[in-house]
Amino acid sequence: MSMSLDGYVAGPDQSLANPLGLGGPKLHTWHLDRTNMHPVDEAATAELLRPMGAYVMGRNMFGPIRGDWAEDWRGWWGDEPPYHAPVFVLTHYARDSVEMAGGTTFHFVTDGFDAALERAREVAGDRDVDIAGGASTVRQALAAGAIEDLYVDITPVTLGAGESMFAGISLDLTQVEVTYSPIATHIHYRVS
Amino acid sequence: MSMSLDGYVAGPDQSLANPLGLGGPKLHTWHLDRTNMHPVDEAATAELLRPMGAYVMGRNMFGPIRGDWAEDWRGWWGDEPPYHAPVFVLTHYARDSVEMAGGTTFHFVTDGFDAALERAREVAGDRDVDIAGGASTVRQALAAGAIEDLYVDITPVTLGAGESMFAGISLDLTQVEVTYSPIATHIHYRVS
Repeated sequence: MSMSLDGYVAGPDQSLANPLGLGGPKLHTWHLDRTNMHPVDEAATAELLRPMGAYVMGRNMFGPIRGDWAEDWRGWWGDEPPYHAPVFVLTHYARDSVEMAGGTTFHFVTDGFDAALERAREVAGDRDVDIAGGASTVRQALAAGAIEDLYVDITPVTLGAGESMFAGISLDLTQVEVTYSPIATHIHYRVS
Repeated sequence: MSMSLDGYVAGPDQSLANPLGLGGPKLHTWHLDRTNMHPVDEAATAELLRPMGAYVMGRNMFGPIRGDWAEDWRGWWGDEPPYHAPVFVLTHYARDSVEMAGGTTFHFVTDGFDAALERAREVAGDRDVDIAGGASTVRQALAAGAIEDLYVDITPVTLGAGESMFAGISLDLTQVEVTYSPIATHIHYRVS
């Protein structure tokens, strides 16, 4: 998860025009700007994009639609999303699965985080399940004790307000590895 | 400033019994526990304790007293505080200066942050002025554009709530240096 120094994974005032909130896009410069990318950020990007068995994702991360589905919304990522695996999207509104190019299929799960995680684990088999975000889904995963490894990319900005993936969650972590470029500090934590 | 991964420099529910709030003491293990201290944490502690020309400190960091002074309160640090220089304490209640052992003198400033900073700069001369904390004083200093260098020690805990030194403050920082031990990541930022 890309995070500001003050702990936010999205800025305040999220909207259709600003899906990441005010200042939110700055959290992602380190992996989205491929111009002269630092080798450490290249390695962290490769880690971020490494093949996973399945993903769990919140509705807010999948799209800005509220209430019933507008059937043409297929995520923010174009025809070939970067997941290349089944993605289980948490929602209160049932919808048929959507198959995309490159191996990504979005499945819509209406019976909660635990059910989505169970389906993701089944399909992943021995491979890892990734909690893709956003903040609310990570909080549910942490509260459920479902996260073993946490990768945080701390960017040199403060947003002053926004969405925290740790709101109300008190954790003791083990710091496993730290790497850094001039524009980000990447920390791998193990959740005790 | 020692900070949790979720951006807090003190935990929730600060009180006389818990001056750093719930979980707050965990933020300081890296520099207070001298048993088998990692060389990187030793260096960061030396940086933290290096001689400064003067300090500015908030009333809440100096003591738990509210309203008029109880004249016997002389800070949390015993007879010889670790500052060894003039410390300008922000307060709404006038009080005579208090001279401690080892060169620390607490001066009480009733006309606001800017006045305290000006007095600290005067007495510091060519040496640096340190904003000792807490969160509210750092926020005032950042809002006033008074901070050039920011040293953040990120500890592997989340508190879920607490006091943030960046609340309402949006900043673009330059990451100058990163060091780390198994129990803390120390980042030096320059404030643009």
